[in-house]
Amino acid sequence: MIKAGIIGATGYAGEELVRILLQHREAEIIWYGSRSYIEQKYADVYRNFFQVVEESCLDDNMDELCKQVDVIFTATPQGYLAGMINEQILSNAKVIDLSADFRIKDVKVYEEWYKINHKSPQYIYEAVYGLCEINREQIRGARLIANPGCYTTCSILTLYPLVKEGIIDENSIIVDAKSGTTGAGRGAKVNNLFCEVNENIKAYGVLTHRHTPEIEEQLSYACSGNIKMIFTPHLVPMNRGILVTAYADLKKEASYEEVRAAYDKYYEKEKFVRVLEKDVYPETRYVQGSNYVDVNFKLDMRTHRVVAMGALDNVVKGAAGQAVQNMNLIFGLPEDEGLTQLPMCF
Amino acid sequence: MIKAGIIGATGYAGEELVRILLQHREAEIIWYGSRSYIEQKYADVYRNFFQVVEESCLDDNMDELCKQVDVIFTATPQGYLAGMINEQILSNAKVIDLSADFRIKDVKVYEEWYKINHKSPQYIYEAVYGLCEINREQIRGARLIANPGCYTTCSILTLYPLVKEGIIDENSIIVDAKSGTTGAGRGAKVNNLFCEVNENIKAYGVLTHRHTPEIEEQLSYACSGNIKMIFTPHLVPMNRGILVTAYADLKKEASYEEVRAAYDKYYEKEKFVRVLEKDVYPETRYVQGSNYVDVNFKLDMRTHRVVAMGALDNVVKGAAGQAVQNMNLIFGLPEDEGLTQLPMCF
Amino acid sequence: MIKAGIIGATGYAGEELVRILLQHREAEIIWYGSRSYIEQKYADVYRNFFQVVEESCLDDNMDELCKQVDVIFTATPQGYLAGMINEQILSNAKVIDLSADFRIKDVKVYEEWYKINHKSPQYIYEAVYGLCEINREQIRGARLIANPGCYTTCSILTLYPLVKEGIIDENSIIVDAKSGTTGAGRGAKVNNLFCEVNENIKAYGVLTHRHTPEIEEQLSYACSGNIKMIFTPHLVPMNRGILVTAYADLKKEASYEEVRAAYDKYYEKEKFVRVLEKDVYPETRYVQGSNYVDVNFKLDMRTHRVVAMGALDNVVKGAAGQAVQNMNLIFGLPEDEGLTQLPMCF
Amino acid sequence: MIKAGIIGATGYAGEELVRILLQHREAEIIWYGSRSYIEQKYADVYRNFFQVVEESCLDDNMDELCKQVDVIFTATPQGYLAGMINEQILSNAKVIDLSADFRIKDVKVYEEWYKINHKSPQYIYEAVYGLCEINREQIRGARLIANPGCYTTCSILTLYPLVKEGIIDENSIIVDAKSGTTGAGRGAKVNNLFCEVNENIKAYGVLTHRHTPEIEEQLSYACSGNIKMIFTPHLVPMNRGILVTAYADLKKEASYEEVRAAYDKYYEKEKFVRVLEKDVYPETRYVQGSNYVDVNFKLDMRTHRVVAMGALDNVVKGAAGQAVQNMNLIFGLPEDEGLTQLPMCF
Repeated sequence: MIKAGIIGATGYAGEELVRILLQHREAEIIWYGSRSYIEQKYADVYRNFFQVVEESCLDDNMDELCKQVDVIFTATPQGYLAGMINEQILSNAKVIDLSADFRIKDVKVYEEWYKINHKSPQYIYEAVYGLCEINREQIRGARLIANPGCYTTCSILTLYPLVKEGIIDENSIIVDAKSGTTGAGRGAKVNNLFCEVNENIKAYGVLTHRHTPEIEEQLSYACSGNIKMIFTPHLVPMNRGILVTAYADLKKEASYEEVRAAYDKYYEKEKFVRVLEKDVYPETRYVQGSNYVDVNFKLDMRTHRVVAMGALDNVVKGAAGQAVQNMNLIFGLPEDEGLTQLPMCF
Repeated sequence: MIKAGIIGATGYAGEELVRILLQHREAEIIWYGSRSYIEQKYADVYRNFFQVVEESCLDDNMDELCKQVDVIFTATPQGYLAGMINEQILSNAKVIDLSADFRIKDVKVYEEWYKINHKSPQYIYEAVYGLCEINREQIRGARLIANPGCYTTCSILTLYPLVKEGIIDENSIIVDAKSGTTGAGRGAKVNNLFCEVNENIKAYGVLTHRHTPEIEEQLSYACSGNIKMIFTPHLVPMNRGILVTAYADLKKEASYEEVRAAYDKYYEKEKFVRVLEKDVYPETRYVQGSNYVDVNFKLDMRTHRVVAMGALDNVVKGAAGQAVQNMNLIFGLPEDEGLTQLPMCF
Repeated sequence: MIKAGIIGATGYAGEELVRILLQHREAEIIWYGSRSYIEQKYADVYRNFFQVVEESCLDDNMDELCKQVDVIFTATPQGYLAGMINEQILSNAKVIDLSADFRIKDVKVYEEWYKINHKSPQYIYEAVYGLCEINREQIRGARLIANPGCYTTCSILTLYPLVKEGIIDENSIIVDAKSGTTGAGRGAKVNNLFCEVNENIKAYGVLTHRHTPEIEEQLSYACSGNIKMIFTPHLVPMNRGILVTAYADLKKEASYEEVRAAYDKYYEKEKFVRVLEKDVYPETRYVQGSNYVDVNFKLDMRTHRVVAMGALDNVVKGAAGQAVQNMNLIFGLPEDEGLTQLPMCF
Repeated sequence: MIKAGIIGATGYAGEELVRILLQHREAEIIWYGSRSYIEQKYADVYRNFFQVVEESCLDDNMDELCKQVDVIFTATPQGYLAGMINEQILSNAKVIDLSADFRIKDVKVYEEWYKINHKSPQYIYEAVYGLCEINREQIRGARLIANPGCYTTCSILTLYPLVKEGIIDENSIIVDAKSGTTGAGRGAKVNNLFCEVNENIKAYGVLTHRHTPEIEEQLSYACSGNIKMIFTPHLVPMNRGILVTAYADLKKEASYEEVRAAYDKYYEKEKFVRVLEKDVYPETRYVQGSNYVDVNFKLDMRTHRVVAMGALDNVVKGAAGQAVQNMNLIFGLPEDEGLTQLPMCF
């Protein structure tokens, strides 16, 4: 039985980690860490777990925590883990970080987009970018996982075959993304109040969103290039889900079958990536509550472009689900253990 | 492995039956019956099941179906099962009916409230009212289960201890209920369009809703009385969930502890009924996607009344989940098999 | 031209005051008071007013404000106005208070339910309870208006004819109310975040909500009684609107026509109270954005009770709209000036 | 007083025509035409108009209608008006068509995208494309107005200055649009049921949406070019509003001030088009219920592109509001008569 600790268990991603791990047959949670709710019963914060979770919240003392567990999930603000991580922690427990601290290899890029000094750059190269479908082998041996961002997971998996196979001009990529409001976190801000989000759609972080360099870096690896792209996130009045609509110029004419073959090449054997049938497009409801990513594409011969689309649940495959998938890989468990819950489409 | 067939698999309750049974370790679905989608792939109707369900929809031929399965779930319009049921079907397969056809023992009451002639009154007395927490023993031996209505399940479980223990005046009951829109079904009606339901709340079926006599009958059994009550359902702009707020006069002064003891007497050992802590009230989100019913009450010494509240997921404990709970009881399986999915609170 | 000042202009009721007064032909706003946004442009807080309102927010200095305006609207937290009001203010400007400070005549009741010491009890008796349809004549001459609460306005107008005409037992009243989330205000609280409110319904303030004694007091005047009742508010995932479903025992048998006549007696000439046709029930969408209150009732001969229902827009007739209606009465303007905007039903 | 008739008064755009015209001081509705609700009271279909509209629905007999009115609004399915229009109608009344029948000058393009034979091509050239801010002068003298589509109005007004001033490469345009669900109409279809739309976002009509050639044609006029572009609409779980996020390559480096000057050149004097302040982006809630279009842009020096954004209310400026604006222009009234209602931001 894998012993797991969670730092940031009372945020939305933390709650999903709890929900998933409680249904995992090979793991148990022994530390519900929370800065705001110390000593309060966890089930008083998330009452869906009434009579299910009896534990109270503990603090975020990683030095103590690492002695008691096999794996630590950090669902914490940017900069937190970089300020805490050390050799002792890493030698005691695997660390799966849901923040961005170790996602970006170029520390200057990190500091520029996040406006934070990185306090532990020495661990950046050790950290494995935990996008399971792409980096499966490196993940198996890792001590420190940089769990990908929600928009990033969706954007990369949507575009990966097109970039990797050289189908699109990698400098022409535009990603227009739409997210449910759990993506904004559980902080008490006026902007996230019900009456400010409901009956509205808006773009935010236009040309400045921090997931931009993360997507660029990972897609650049795929094509050995140096991608610059536009990424525009939008806030949608719903709880869960990300939909990515991506646009790019075709390098040359391509048939549906050729492009489809590229998607199949990478995803045919992937349980969690579903390439939809022709002319069927992803909808967030069909992945809701699950670890699936649904992707598809359409070619436009009028403009010589491709429209590629992807949908996932931002708190599952975009956060907690992928974190557990990473844990399964590290510990040699079936990759889908704890992640077999089917989507709830309404 | 229990072989299950579903008639009405493409409605909302049908979809939930599929979702739950696919995660059930002792059952498999071999018949996805649907009148509107015959020969279409089930996963084309509910694309959350893409790559999960390969079968296409079959018709609703119960005579053929009953030879192939151990249990038939009918998630069908009122009157359908009463028009089809016969000895051959019942001798071949157990039938769990999610419609109202066999819920009400007095056929005149049924015909008056439903405006339908009952075509098989001879099976009404055999049918067991499948409210598992109340009628567990009778369910085990049944061939035909009348699976309770969604509002009914919530209303009865909220009020049962108060009525059974004689705490309230049974003629003073008022049930004010609020339901998500899956309760209105998947029929294409203007009234259920997004823009007609969103940003609105309304009462409907005022003093005429068909769940009224069902609640009255079951609560009357509990007190050996002849209850008449007011039941007012409301439509809420959300997908899932029923909240019942019930009011009744106290027969005599009672302390919190006395009333709490009544609730504990019936529910302490029930996995799926959670009596909340003092001053914590049910919210539909905390049971969403699960088979739980959360209940609680508050005494008002100013008016000598009690306010009792209950919340459940109308398509799970209010329909498909309870149907599977009934199946588990009939076939001697652990009562919670397939029903251990935790609530998704957002 | 009436000069108006608003204290609390950046809350939801304040924004509605602005929206309505900007469309009022006889009033102009010269003071946008806000504690949190002083010196910020009002249109930066509510960008619907971009290029419409050029002014910046001012502070809440009522002593200064009262010299510049004819009328002050206070859309402020409980206790604020009671702490500020004085003879100088009242001799300079009319005051229309959207808080509860002067609504309840018995200061002990106020202090018990609001847990605040009342700092200006000497003005309580002067204050006129500004429910225009009931207290029109007193309002015309008033210096200080206690603008009714949102739930209160809806509950009283729904029940008034029944109580006034002695049709119902006044000790049997139960009010089950449902409100959109603007009713919870614009404060940055976790409970009011989009993902906490969306896809959920819950009761709150069970048996303790502060509008209870206000409804009781006003209805008691109507019947010269001493009403105690149950009031249960619920939070609905929508922005605007209150629906009241009220229950009471009939004192004696009554026909539809008799009860209808009671409603017509009080409301037939009222522009803003619409008694719906038989068997048509109020829905919040049909009053959205307007000053209307829609009411109706249904008699239940099975239980000898009446179900009465009412719907209004909580930030218009339940707050800002009624405040402007009061202003119109005080200043001798047509009662509907600025309030003729039709409901937006989607 | 202008006498107005509406064909299709019971659809969502029809309801908005009614709401706006009822608040118009120079127009009165004398014909509420509806195919589905003939002889039913209009206020029974849209109960927000209870006690406001007494009329019942009439049929869609344009030959009769044209004799009674000065202007006919057709809010009808594609092909309807083209099948009915004739010289007699046009000589009796002005016609403002909210369908697409006369929007596209090339009848082959119309027939290809709409899959309909055009029955009155002889009127296509006479029809004026009623985008008031662009074609104001031609509108004044028109008999037949092709009122622009909702997505089209938003897309064109967002991009017009960039195209007209040659700032962007007109062959690089990508429009990613998001619409509220009123855009899908009031037809009773499963896809538009509350539980199918709520908690979901999806693209639809990918590369095939009929507004594509309309945007292309109008923007081509602006640059004397032959634009082909990608247009992707998405369905958002809200009632009203369209947000357009448009992307294009800059022809050459440009400063914020230069591009801003282009926007100001066309919109500074336009009441209904608001160019937002730098770094403030459109949100649909800030135009809700009003005739405003909010636009803005941001330059990306990393990719040499511009992101341009626009928001409007699809049933007001995107349909009924613009139709009334056209009527005002034709009849020489102040352009904003009946359209001064301020946005409701919640």
